[in-house]
Amino acid sequence: MNQGDGNPTETGTNRDLRAMLGGLRRPVLVGVSGDSGSGKTTYSDGIARVLGPELVTSFSLDGYHKEDRDQRRRSGRSPLDPRANELDLARQHLDRLREGRSVSVPVYDHSTGRFATPRLLRPFPVVIVEGLHALYPEILPALDFSIYVDTDSNVKWRWKLERDTQVRGYDHDSAYREMNQRETDYRRWIDFQKTNADVVIRIHDSEMASLAVDEYTGEVPPDCHHMEIITTPTNSPLPPLHLPVDLNNMTQSQAMPFMLANVPSSYWGRRVNVVHIDGIMPKRALGELERDIMRLAGIPAAAQTASQRSAAILFTQLLVVWPFIGRLIALAQQDLASGAD
Amino acid sequence: MNQGDGNPTETGTNRDLRAMLGGLRRPVLVGVSGDSGSGKTTYSDGIARVLGPELVTSFSLDGYHKEDRDQRRRSGRSPLDPRANELDLARQHLDRLREGRSVSVPVYDHSTGRFATPRLLRPFPVVIVEGLHALYPEILPALDFSIYVDTDSNVKWRWKLERDTQVRGYDHDSAYREMNQRETDYRRWIDFQKTNADVVIRIHDSEMASLAVDEYTGEVPPDCHHMEIITTPTNSPLPPLHLPVDLNNMTQSQAMPFMLANVPSSYWGRRVNVVHIDGIMPKRALGELERDIMRLAGIPAAAQTASQRSAAILFTQLLVVWPFIGRLIALAQQDLASGAD
Repeated sequence: MNQGDGNPTETGTNRDLRAMLGGLRRPVLVGVSGDSGSGKTTYSDGIARVLGPELVTSFSLDGYHKEDRDQRRRSGRSPLDPRANELDLARQHLDRLREGRSVSVPVYDHSTGRFATPRLLRPFPVVIVEGLHALYPEILPALDFSIYVDTDSNVKWRWKLERDTQVRGYDHDSAYREMNQRETDYRRWIDFQKTNADVVIRIHDSEMASLAVDEYTGEVPPDCHHMEIITTPTNSPLPPLHLPVDLNNMTQSQAMPFMLANVPSSYWGRRVNVVHIDGIMPKRALGELERDIMRLAGIPAAAQTASQRSAAILFTQLLVVWPFIGRLIALAQQDLASGAD
Repeated sequence: MNQGDGNPTETGTNRDLRAMLGGLRRPVLVGVSGDSGSGKTTYSDGIARVLGPELVTSFSLDGYHKEDRDQRRRSGRSPLDPRANELDLARQHLDRLREGRSVSVPVYDHSTGRFATPRLLRPFPVVIVEGLHALYPEILPALDFSIYVDTDSNVKWRWKLERDTQVRGYDHDSAYREMNQRETDYRRWIDFQKTNADVVIRIHDSEMASLAVDEYTGEVPPDCHHMEIITTPTNSPLPPLHLPVDLNNMTQSQAMPFMLANVPSSYWGRRVNVVHIDGIMPKRALGELERDIMRLAGIPAAAQTASQRSAAILFTQLLVVWPFIGRLIALAQQDLASGAD
């Protein structure tokens, strides 16, 4: 909540953000890192949904693995090891995109475990750089905004097991064995990138029960999590954005469990705000919030707002998009101010 | 938050609640219990402020102590012992008020520790019965709504020490000694009344720091507490009531710490909802909320909305008043339906 008054009409956010993006002299690069199976794509998807899919493209670092699955099996090298990835080449490609030039991006196919035909990527206004090493020192300087998805290992393992066995065709035992082996690699090579991110999303199992008095009687769907969104304050001139919390819920016997908090903290030596979300949020309130974000950012409302994702995930997507919009506005203003250089 | 739609205009809450109260054939009695120094008066005051002081009067059970301070010193009896109070007489007086008749209420003066001149109490539309034993079996059947204030002993002791030494003229040592002695009495005779209350307000020290990541950097004023409002669901036909939470706060470096949760629980075998509040809330949002409550209840806005109390206390007052308004509406409808009996 914000004591401050602000003056939405004078902040520049009522300008059409898409027009602003189109006017930028180079693409805006957003890095999204985190373990495989941590849910990175969810937040890339959120950005694409809110800004409009025609303005956003994604750039996967997986194509820069040096070895395919068969080769890895023989060499015993982990794709999490930065040395098993062509990060310098990826950076060259990103720099070329930043200059507004197209690049031929190598592609790794997770279903076959092999490299596929490279695809030609032309510079979209927003490029989402997704990968295990997306916030690595080789990549970070090329990024305008950085997101790290830090999912608790129990949650991550459950998701990964589902995906690897159901979608990627691994058998349960080998998927589990691989996860066990790679946790050490994850701590060693991937995890630390969160210390450099503008936004860190932490995902835990729901903790609603810990807020009950004698005994918890609420029910949350299986995809309900306790999310923490750790944001570096931007002080962007964003107008107030209200989530309408219906207090009348408390008088109803079919009350929905939910929790929302904002906590100023320090995180790896930096000053951050932590937003906690847990429980169930009415889709209608989130639909309103999404429309408000789009209106405040000057984005025409999309036809397909109704999503199948859980409300907490939708809400988290919006909480990640909002500071990113702040960064976009700052970039556009900077671009405008720097004139013809 | 509430998925439900409701239809505010048809719930009857848009009728003038004051007119409805005036039309009731008997006063509505609200019990407020809790330890001495727990903050009972805060919630009586909240009800009076929102409904309008001219419709509300208070009835203190302190006048029904059998002994004054000097007599207690000699007898060694505790005023917390129900047998040291004329609860049957208090009930007779309350019954008389419910019948619409005036009563002469005995008065205990806390500043002198003596009984003062009884005061004549005429039946107001709402009578708040305040006292250590306000939800005792002798009193409870006469009440329409019951509130218990359950303040953590460390918070209570700090408040009580301030009040007893500054206002009631006790010296610090004897106040502290008395508090120590009476804690056992409190657990024995007072505390259990919470199991019968429609609303229980639990007050703890602020727990914002426990929600921080690495380290908490927020600042809360000294009167900021973690409040839990435990409400028995009424399923009253109340319209949606929204607290506008400004999410933009999360992008600001001067972010206000706050926390809000709704948790379905069981409490002493009953199904309840627990609302958690902690941190700082902008007075403007609370002012809006208070105006909304008054508008939805059909109460003309009071001139003196701006209060000196902390925002969390104001918010808690409103969260207690809201289900009480639900009960009032149900009573009025019942009264209407019962016709001329």
